[in-house]
Amino acid sequence: MRMYDIIKKKRDGGELSAEEINFFIRGVTDGSIPDYQISALLMAVYFRDMTVRETSDLTFAIRDSGARLDFSAIHGVRVDKHSTGGVGDKTSLVVAPIVASFGVKVAKMSGRGLGHTGGTVDKLESIPGFRTTLSEEDFIRQVNEIGLAIVGQSKQFAPADKKLYALRDVTATVDSMPLIASSIMGKKLAADDDCIVLDVKTGSGSFMKSVEDSKKLAGLMVDIGKRAGKKMVALITNMDRPLGHAIGNALEVVEAVETLRGNGPEDFTGVCLTLASYMLSLAGMGTPDEARTLAQRAIEDGSALEKLKQTVAAQGGDANCIAHPETFQKAKYAHAVVSGEEGYIGKVNTEAYGLAALALGAGRNRVEDAIDPGAGILLEKKTGDFVRKGETLATLYSDRPATFAEAEKILRAATTIEATMPEDEPLVYDIIA
Amino acid sequence: MRMYDIIKKKRDGGELSAEEINFFIRGVTDGSIPDYQISALLMAVYFRDMTVRETSDLTFAIRDSGARLDFSAIHGVRVDKHSTGGVGDKTSLVVAPIVASFGVKVAKMSGRGLGHTGGTVDKLESIPGFRTTLSEEDFIRQVNEIGLAIVGQSKQFAPADKKLYALRDVTATVDSMPLIASSIMGKKLAADDDCIVLDVKTGSGSFMKSVEDSKKLAGLMVDIGKRAGKKMVALITNMDRPLGHAIGNALEVVEAVETLRGNGPEDFTGVCLTLASYMLSLAGMGTPDEARTLAQRAIEDGSALEKLKQTVAAQGGDANCIAHPETFQKAKYAHAVVSGEEGYIGKVNTEAYGLAALALGAGRNRVEDAIDPGAGILLEKKTGDFVRKGETLATLYSDRPATFAEAEKILRAATTIEATMPEDEPLVYDIIA
Repeated sequence: MRMYDIIKKKRDGGELSAEEINFFIRGVTDGSIPDYQISALLMAVYFRDMTVRETSDLTFAIRDSGARLDFSAIHGVRVDKHSTGGVGDKTSLVVAPIVASFGVKVAKMSGRGLGHTGGTVDKLESIPGFRTTLSEEDFIRQVNEIGLAIVGQSKQFAPADKKLYALRDVTATVDSMPLIASSIMGKKLAADDDCIVLDVKTGSGSFMKSVEDSKKLAGLMVDIGKRAGKKMVALITNMDRPLGHAIGNALEVVEAVETLRGNGPEDFTGVCLTLASYMLSLAGMGTPDEARTLAQRAIEDGSALEKLKQTVAAQGGDANCIAHPETFQKAKYAHAVVSGEEGYIGKVNTEAYGLAALALGAGRNRVEDAIDPGAGILLEKKTGDFVRKGETLATLYSDRPATFAEAEKILRAATTIEATMPEDEPLVYDIIA
Repeated sequence: MRMYDIIKKKRDGGELSAEEINFFIRGVTDGSIPDYQISALLMAVYFRDMTVRETSDLTFAIRDSGARLDFSAIHGVRVDKHSTGGVGDKTSLVVAPIVASFGVKVAKMSGRGLGHTGGTVDKLESIPGFRTTLSEEDFIRQVNEIGLAIVGQSKQFAPADKKLYALRDVTATVDSMPLIASSIMGKKLAADDDCIVLDVKTGSGSFMKSVEDSKKLAGLMVDIGKRAGKKMVALITNMDRPLGHAIGNALEVVEAVETLRGNGPEDFTGVCLTLASYMLSLAGMGTPDEARTLAQRAIEDGSALEKLKQTVAAQGGDANCIAHPETFQKAKYAHAVVSGEEGYIGKVNTEAYGLAALALGAGRNRVEDAIDPGAGILLEKKTGDFVRKGETLATLYSDRPATFAEAEKILRAATTIEATMPEDEPLVYDIIA
């Protein structure tokens, strides 16, 4: 088999066989296929697309390019949730404890943030002492004991994806449905869950800018997951506004804790309950409606918050922070962004909000950058809110006050203030099962 | 400027500016753009094509990536002929002396053969003593003195093309009209001719398999040449059969000499006269019809053959070989391929004929391979000829008789013998000015 022939076949619109895809991914992984041939194939895939069968085979080959987890030692149903990445998206911190509080197992591996999007692992590391690295043995033991563990993604998983993504990033081949789907699912399937709920973000703060594309991607990933024997559901959720009010690691943990106490913002609480209900429902806890009632109860009776405390304590974190979020590490400086006019907040550019938080020190431009846990933004006004001249739109937090000017500029440019109230958009556009 | 943005623009169907194309070719030449980005752009160009303006700018950037020749010291009109490469194509050896015999200057740089196609330089090197490397000074002096010099292409010309071609060859991006045209013309325009006649081969033995594609390529190259201020004509010629009877270096020189003596095969002589007439006509020697009469006369009165002798002598070659081609270096062994049936020779696979000659030692698989000057094929029967059982179809020549079996096998598979005479196809399909 020759890589040249594989490129030519795809270039000419052919359907690659499983053998050809495996040959390709093996060569990517062991370095025997040069980068220039990989990128030529990626561009051909960009133009010619892939069938569901090809995309599934590509996903499985990526999954099998590195280590895979074996969760067979975990007792009970294992369910996971995966988000395609958003701004202010701290849902994992809420839904995982809710679901685990019912005895459903959540053995969660999460990513770090990059660019405008945050990562669950970074958020958790703003809790003093919290360890996001556990041995596989400790990880499984903790899941069996308290139902929930959240660790960082090991570098051993899906090394082919790492290589492919690095090349896609510099060759303008990121925006390809089969390449996006296989990248996400290749890593996801390296874990060993029974059920997966996908949260496909759509809009200005996400990968997919249109609802239609998001549905297509969601449908593709649900298909792939089912072919791998998983129970799958995908939600298409709105990322044309940040989720909740907090953007930034410690700020988001505090908002998640408040949500588990029943004091969360309405939009964020709503999305969390929907996600949790589908996770519970897939795990056999009734219909989504029935499961939603359960999830609400877990917030009301404090059992979900208790589960988060247990998890934090089990992973070495300061559980007192969870009980008393006001004691949380704060940024040294705060700066109010004040409205110069009166009107309704219109559509915002969510990605720019993420970039403003990045400028304050809440994120990283490059994988090796350090993060300032206290940095970020608290939004006082969001799309649809009425604001008067002189009122605070948002408060910026940073240890480096020199960053306020740039972040404020980005934030203002990303926010429109209009004479009429904008139309209300749904938080969840669709559910694909 | 970033290569990423250039790839993305072309990927999305945009038209690249001259600045973007120059940035790209500079980066290809100095190595600052990595291969994986180059190949991603090449694949995007494959799918999105380029406008004539983009292709011209690409051509000029390739031309300017290395040294350029200055022929201003040559007195008189400078005309060149360029073939896109064929099997048994020894036309340069005939048309250059014809044209030069009228005082028109032919300062010719030719390539070497690779794969199934031969190269003029290899053919000339089968003449004992012939030097295909001259200093620029000697080259220009010889053109001024006798009107004709033929040397190998210097490696300093169009280094960007060398790099691009090497990548296209392994990434399935060779078959792209703008990439083919800019590669050919980028090198061609590095020389300093006033007039160029392009011989675009079409059919089984060439780059372009269809007449339609050949016309498109020819039109594009004529446009590019005109934009560079050259007088241009392109001929679309038939490569669905080898040109003449000889394939292989010394064998082809002998056939060229016989043609200059007026004893050449009809098909080959016809193509040579057509090419020479357009070269002479572009150089101001009347209409193509008038020029054809001149060209015929140069064969009849021996002045073209005399010009070839002068050139061979000037470049250190044994002119006695030209006067007495029967003294030419021959292969040690000959082998007749005999027909097992009776009928008309039908369509042949010309590329396979080239590969059969390659197997005998007449060509090279890789740039660094050595060539056996005496090896090759003399075709006794060609498309349209009637053959009886037991008659010789072709004679194979090689110093390595072990290669006869393979070459015979290839040759037989490439030749069909049919009950009815095949339709006659034109030798020159079209002329694009």
